[in-house]
Amino acid sequence: MSHPLFEKHRATLDNALQAIQTRGYWSAYNEMPSPKVYGATAPEDGKRAFDALLGQQFELGQPGQTGWHGGEQSPFGIEMNVQYPVCEVEALISAGEKAMVGWQAVGAAGRTGICMEMLERLNQQSFEIAHAVMMTTGQGWMMAFQAGAPHAQDRGLEAVTYAWREQSAVPAQAMWEKPQGKNPPLVMQKNFEIVGRGVGVVVGCGTFPTWNTYPGLFAALATGNAVIIKPHSNAILPAAITVRTLRAVLTENGLNPDLVTLCVAAQRETTRQLVTHSGVKSIDFTGSNVFGQWLIDHCRQAQVYAELAGVNNIVIESTDAYQAMLGNLAFTLSLYSGQMCTTSQALLVPAAGIDTDVGHKSYDEVCADLAQAVERFLSKPEVAHAVLGAIQSNDTAERIDIASSGSLGTVVLASTPLENPDFPKARVRTPVLLACDAEDEKAYMEERFGPISFIVKVASAEAAIALSERITRTHGALTVGIYSTRPEVIDAMTAATWRSKVALSINLTSGVFVNQSAAFSDYHGTGGNPSANASYSDSAFVANRFRVVQRRRHV
Amino acid sequence: MSHPLFEKHRATLDNALQAIQTRGYWSAYNEMPSPKVYGATAPEDGKRAFDALLGQQFELGQPGQTGWHGGEQSPFGIEMNVQYPVCEVEALISAGEKAMVGWQAVGAAGRTGICMEMLERLNQQSFEIAHAVMMTTGQGWMMAFQAGAPHAQDRGLEAVTYAWREQSAVPAQAMWEKPQGKNPPLVMQKNFEIVGRGVGVVVGCGTFPTWNTYPGLFAALATGNAVIIKPHSNAILPAAITVRTLRAVLTENGLNPDLVTLCVAAQRETTRQLVTHSGVKSIDFTGSNVFGQWLIDHCRQAQVYAELAGVNNIVIESTDAYQAMLGNLAFTLSLYSGQMCTTSQALLVPAAGIDTDVGHKSYDEVCADLAQAVERFLSKPEVAHAVLGAIQSNDTAERIDIASSGSLGTVVLASTPLENPDFPKARVRTPVLLACDAEDEKAYMEERFGPISFIVKVASAEAAIALSERITRTHGALTVGIYSTRPEVIDAMTAATWRSKVALSINLTSGVFVNQSAAFSDYHGTGGNPSANASYSDSAFVANRFRVVQRRRHV
Repeated sequence: MSHPLFEKHRATLDNALQAIQTRGYWSAYNEMPSPKVYGATAPEDGKRAFDALLGQQFELGQPGQTGWHGGEQSPFGIEMNVQYPVCEVEALISAGEKAMVGWQAVGAAGRTGICMEMLERLNQQSFEIAHAVMMTTGQGWMMAFQAGAPHAQDRGLEAVTYAWREQSAVPAQAMWEKPQGKNPPLVMQKNFEIVGRGVGVVVGCGTFPTWNTYPGLFAALATGNAVIIKPHSNAILPAAITVRTLRAVLTENGLNPDLVTLCVAAQRETTRQLVTHSGVKSIDFTGSNVFGQWLIDHCRQAQVYAELAGVNNIVIESTDAYQAMLGNLAFTLSLYSGQMCTTSQALLVPAAGIDTDVGHKSYDEVCADLAQAVERFLSKPEVAHAVLGAIQSNDTAERIDIASSGSLGTVVLASTPLENPDFPKARVRTPVLLACDAEDEKAYMEERFGPISFIVKVASAEAAIALSERITRTHGALTVGIYSTRPEVIDAMTAATWRSKVALSINLTSGVFVNQSAAFSDYHGTGGNPSANASYSDSAFVANRFRVVQRRRHV
Repeated sequence: MSHPLFEKHRATLDNALQAIQTRGYWSAYNEMPSPKVYGATAPEDGKRAFDALLGQQFELGQPGQTGWHGGEQSPFGIEMNVQYPVCEVEALISAGEKAMVGWQAVGAAGRTGICMEMLERLNQQSFEIAHAVMMTTGQGWMMAFQAGAPHAQDRGLEAVTYAWREQSAVPAQAMWEKPQGKNPPLVMQKNFEIVGRGVGVVVGCGTFPTWNTYPGLFAALATGNAVIIKPHSNAILPAAITVRTLRAVLTENGLNPDLVTLCVAAQRETTRQLVTHSGVKSIDFTGSNVFGQWLIDHCRQAQVYAELAGVNNIVIESTDAYQAMLGNLAFTLSLYSGQMCTTSQALLVPAAGIDTDVGHKSYDEVCADLAQAVERFLSKPEVAHAVLGAIQSNDTAERIDIASSGSLGTVVLASTPLENPDFPKARVRTPVLLACDAEDEKAYMEERFGPISFIVKVASAEAAIALSERITRTHGALTVGIYSTRPEVIDAMTAATWRSKVALSINLTSGVFVNQSAAFSDYHGTGGNPSANASYSDSAFVANRFRVVQRRRHV
């Protein structure tokens, strides 16, 4: 059973299937915010569409609406003042369950085609979504466009592709013919129906409201489930635009739009009511350990796919490209003011220093040189603002203040506020770098989200690798790195990451950064350490979101 | 990276891969306990091997041994008196973790080949294992052979096959080449290592110590994990034979045998210590709701794959083969004295009776005719003993007594003890059939494990279908059935099973029974209702047992 939209997107799907098989470079959606790619008027149209949303009620036509709620505060200081529908949880869930009947009937191919149409439509809205992401999260423009639109769409398509591969491996029917010696065989016809587990809830985060939402959203949808998006209270708009577009695509295809809804929760109790509801069968969550662990403990009726906090770390043992290494690290620590779940927090450096192509560098020299590299990198204001963006929350700003006070370690590089000429009210801070000893575990061995990093003095390279493994095993990490010119050190670090189950970047010195992960090639998270129990994307991310219900009869 | 044993078993694997793709009839291991198939001396050799184990200490050479423990009571009343090594939990887990290093290094193909070699070796031991299964569980000989040996081996191979399909879909390495316009592309080499999650524990049950153990055992092994089997206290021997064989195959292949160990727990506390250990990352469990729920609640460090209790049910609306239907049901209710997790407990019959090919039958007539069909089927002692086997536990015997007292419903067919001439001390009972009203939910709406079934009088066919759905949703079911000559009734029942997520058998009247599920074709459990959170086997059963750890570097 095919579907017109499956046929329409078939060539892209075939490429995507090839990509997940090889996990080389591939992307379905262009990452350049260029009129040449997206159309001559796309940048202006997108900006206009975004502006038109500000100060308005964002209509979605959802069931059970009881009022409006808003209150997003832009890190760039602009007035948002968008109001979103508040709907009864019970109404959203029962509407989602009702919509799942038709969604099941359209079959895996139909769902795949319709999800790909949704993604194409979101891609056409990339500029509008990028502005919404930028203004709610504080990301710089280029990142908001890339991570917020095409890269997020790629991650969504990646989930759809895995979902299709798993579902298409289940035959719709079978003829079972068991030989009975000289007697006629036993013959049965069997039918296998793919059914979604039930309503899925995707809980968004404040920093990546699309990139961290689309994988769970499209994994759950493609496998036959309804989805309710519960966005972060300060990053509702990108989710609302997404929901509106998905509902439109469903309606155009004769399907019940209530398959996808937005749940804006004015009270915390509403969220708890939503996620613990017996009809909710999966929860995708990105955010804090506290709420993530609460979900895992209290939402036993659902599968919880969680990305939590971690302490990403890098072992710096030696390098044959000292300046390039420092430059690479400076970019990583500065990008979006370190507000990425993949930003390195602990840089582990042997006490005796490191060998480099420009001579031996003591621990103190590494500290000073890295501080200088960050400072130099951010010395041009236009570069600084483009890369740093703004600080997403007051909590992060407060963490920067605490780090700057010197209470967590010796300040190697102080954070300074910057004035953004385009957004005078923007909350902009440069990164803070601290030096500390390996013994100061209380300082560096918990996530301090934001542009706060530690250069940790460790007894030896072996001790640094062991420390990296222990940090990852006990506190989690989405990314670790190693700089070394010695194969045996790289091998030891590799073996450590197999045990602690974390992705390793080796000697990054040019245009790839430890905090970046590319859809269709890099697995984001392994799902095997405390920072995440799932990965974007692999079979495990999709295979348990649907079930196969068989029936059999004699023929 | 291939492996000699992968090449040796490649043709079988290819067939198995084809089988899971089509889910038609296929089997790797012959189900006939025949010397023609297994060798002229196989039956006697197997019996002799089994006899030689009785009254002995079962040596396994495991680490951390502190003593011996036994105590299995055969439902057939023979003296077992086998003693098994008791080993420290901590020693078994750390030995398993150590063994995983070499198991990871052998790679997915190597693991697949070695698992298939293990299964082949178990297949050669089918007679020995069948005797062990029969004497510990009370299964009749034919069932003990088929379900205990070849069918269990098929289920093990099915898990290995899914595990291979998922693992082989992960490339070992990739060249990532991202175009940079006019500049040279960014190029990275990426490597993807499959690592097991950690030690898996498989908790066996007392009725199917191999069939319900091999799927989890081989799923966990094939995906790179060590496995500790914690057998049911009364069905240790089949697990011990299995563990000994697997350890031998590992040793022959230069691998650490402590990858697979047996944990015989003299105290309940030992089991708790085992399953809650931080090193245990997966638990496969078949058994009661009480302990199953305890595992889910307390073993948060592990993935729990659980098969629990359920209330299997059949809606009988009409039939065009009344006698054949009764015969089919009589066999189902009698086989292994109803001690299968798939045996029907509640037969839902409209109060107004049913239309049949031999005229309308009132509810009371259906009750009487089914009772008579069971009685007639068991009237020949040799048939009765072959089919019924023996009652596995005193608890089940007590449940039969309670049911026979009439306190749960009107006794339509009383249970009688039978004397088994071959095993004078065997505990043999015929099934008890009760009649009750749909309102008597306390009677029929909880699992009453054993040969205890209810013919439930329901207002109408529609009410029966609705009741079946509610039973399955709230109490779970591994199997449901429908008898009807009306397509609209079958369609309504089909839709109900999609909602309640349970496998449906339609109008079974010949040599296939609702309580049987064939490996490679029937999914055992959907994983979508309270009777089980996983299925034998599908992608979800294997995909989350391993993780992919990547590393990347510039080239």
